[in-house]
Amino acid sequence: MSNSSKSKNKKPVILTGDRPTGPLHLGHYVGSLLNRVSMQETHEQFILVADLQALTDNAENPEKVSSNVLEVVTDYLAVGIDPKKTSIVLQSQVPDIALLSMILSNLVSVSRVERNPTVKEELRQKGIDREIPLGFFSYPVSQAADITAFKATVVPVGQDQLPMIEITNEIVRRFNRIYNCNVLMEAEAVVPKVGRLPGIDGKAKMSKSLGNAINLKSSSKEIENAVKQMFTDPGHLRITDPGKVEGNVVFDYLDVFDAEKDVLKELKAQYKKGGLGDTTIKKRLNGILQDLISPIREERTRLENDKAEVIKVIEAGTRKANEVVSETLQEVRSAMGINYGSNWSKYKRHE
Amino acid sequence: MSNSSKSKNKKPVILTGDRPTGPLHLGHYVGSLLNRVSMQETHEQFILVADLQALTDNAENPEKVSSNVLEVVTDYLAVGIDPKKTSIVLQSQVPDIALLSMILSNLVSVSRVERNPTVKEELRQKGIDREIPLGFFSYPVSQAADITAFKATVVPVGQDQLPMIEITNEIVRRFNRIYNCNVLMEAEAVVPKVGRLPGIDGKAKMSKSLGNAINLKSSSKEIENAVKQMFTDPGHLRITDPGKVEGNVVFDYLDVFDAEKDVLKELKAQYKKGGLGDTTIKKRLNGILQDLISPIREERTRLENDKAEVIKVIEAGTRKANEVVSETLQEVRSAMGINYGSNWSKYKRHE
Repeated sequence: MSNSSKSKNKKPVILTGDRPTGPLHLGHYVGSLLNRVSMQETHEQFILVADLQALTDNAENPEKVSSNVLEVVTDYLAVGIDPKKTSIVLQSQVPDIALLSMILSNLVSVSRVERNPTVKEELRQKGIDREIPLGFFSYPVSQAADITAFKATVVPVGQDQLPMIEITNEIVRRFNRIYNCNVLMEAEAVVPKVGRLPGIDGKAKMSKSLGNAINLKSSSKEIENAVKQMFTDPGHLRITDPGKVEGNVVFDYLDVFDAEKDVLKELKAQYKKGGLGDTTIKKRLNGILQDLISPIREERTRLENDKAEVIKVIEAGTRKANEVVSETLQEVRSAMGINYGSNWSKYKRHE
Repeated sequence: MSNSSKSKNKKPVILTGDRPTGPLHLGHYVGSLLNRVSMQETHEQFILVADLQALTDNAENPEKVSSNVLEVVTDYLAVGIDPKKTSIVLQSQVPDIALLSMILSNLVSVSRVERNPTVKEELRQKGIDREIPLGFFSYPVSQAADITAFKATVVPVGQDQLPMIEITNEIVRRFNRIYNCNVLMEAEAVVPKVGRLPGIDGKAKMSKSLGNAINLKSSSKEIENAVKQMFTDPGHLRITDPGKVEGNVVFDYLDVFDAEKDVLKELKAQYKKGGLGDTTIKKRLNGILQDLISPIREERTRLENDKAEVIKVIEAGTRKANEVVSETLQEVRSAMGINYGSNWSKYKRHE
């Protein structure tokens, strides 16, 4: 069973996912969703809807998490994630991952977790230091369990998440060394080429909580308003004034979304020289974004009227995840010598 | 289903257990095993063979844990734990406990765990401070998950473990308050009346690692030798000398095991006055211990020749545990609003 399923599937395994704490936006679209749509053709892909991880800093507000699970998965399907090629997995429904996490947490010290720059930075940002929940503090290990449970060898991450993959691979090496095996796999962190999309206000990061995002479920009117509010060049007062292209969010977006690179080049030159108004470039961007989001919104609407389909996708992906992870856990137990079923089979009566 | 199983079982639930890192000894017998044999008549009792917890400080040496699981359960059965009345549960085979542990770890801060006197003392003893494994550091929370998963309201513990029950109850209150429910139950710590049995060398604690224990599986000869080596009164050189009863291990043991309290009282008086030799009191104790352990050893030998029976007991107890814990976890999920199956049932097509 284990061998046949392995030989059937030779594709490298990719694990990716999101904390379901809000609807997905254009930043997710260019930063990860497009990549996933393309990766599912060449990889065995698992997308983890990380509700347990989201609870590590939302324990007092679980409905923020639970209410967004269907939202996020609807976004996945609407942008072209194909459940025949990608398994969409609800983390809290795969208890074996939690068990693996417990096992791996014996292989990493408290101080090693503290030294992790991502955790350090998050501690600093939250300004609550050691008053953070133990679950939040431990999430690098639970993330290592997520990755290794699926034997993922490719993990797309942002630049700031690279230390998390490092800690995962340390744990993997430690496990394989101590238990003298090759059961767990090291993962390669892949940082997507497209960097972060700025918020419409010009802030480095598009984020729901900053209120500067364009969601994939935005209405036509909301997109139009967002583009209208977009930060351009505050010194560009009259059309005839020369304008700045750098730090101009409209041009940042056109760089990403405008397919006509030659036209864009000319527009930039004209804007810099003077004689091109914000209204014109915003109109162009609005048209492009409307064309991009309109079919996504349409598919979203269809899915919202057929939630049963979305739920089926989650259930199927989660069922598959339970099978895969259970197989990994059996190998982990065997390597550690705590695979009692097999240890004890010699004693069993054949009844 | 949930309601009917509740109404069938009105007995209070007791959770107890051991880390399987060695055979059980007379210290366990008087400190916990006898209590369990009696508690199973009045309580719904679960005994957790805590192999996962044992791995938190034995990760590099898992066979120390795995090889002792059958040993410990054989000891349980040999002293009279009745699998019809008590469920013997193998911790690593109940993944839902690990999941509950993850959920509860969001409700307790890192500094709260550090302040726990039991953890503090263990950190001090190990002298490795923050280099301890995260899993070991987190074990108060995983123990809270063990207790609450079974909805245990009675937990027999040693005096030094009282702060662990405190932290469990804090988590329980926090959970019930945040999620506005009564799903988790506070537990009462019960400290057994019989204190610790000293080691045969007079050290306060009988322990396998100190080499001062009398195991339940000791041979007749081993018991005899252990009693011969027992620490008495170093000032009691000649039979005619007055001897001390306090700190005299033979009398400590007689206090616990000698049923003839009047005879014992006379012996003590005689020993204090002078005229009673160590050989005489040791012979008496030896006879008593032989009578005590002989039937246990006999039953142990029978079970060692029928490991299949022992394994069956573990499998049945663990199966029952999985049912009980899964029910608790459903209630936990419902309280938190992450019981998706039920959240989503309204959307499902009836196919």
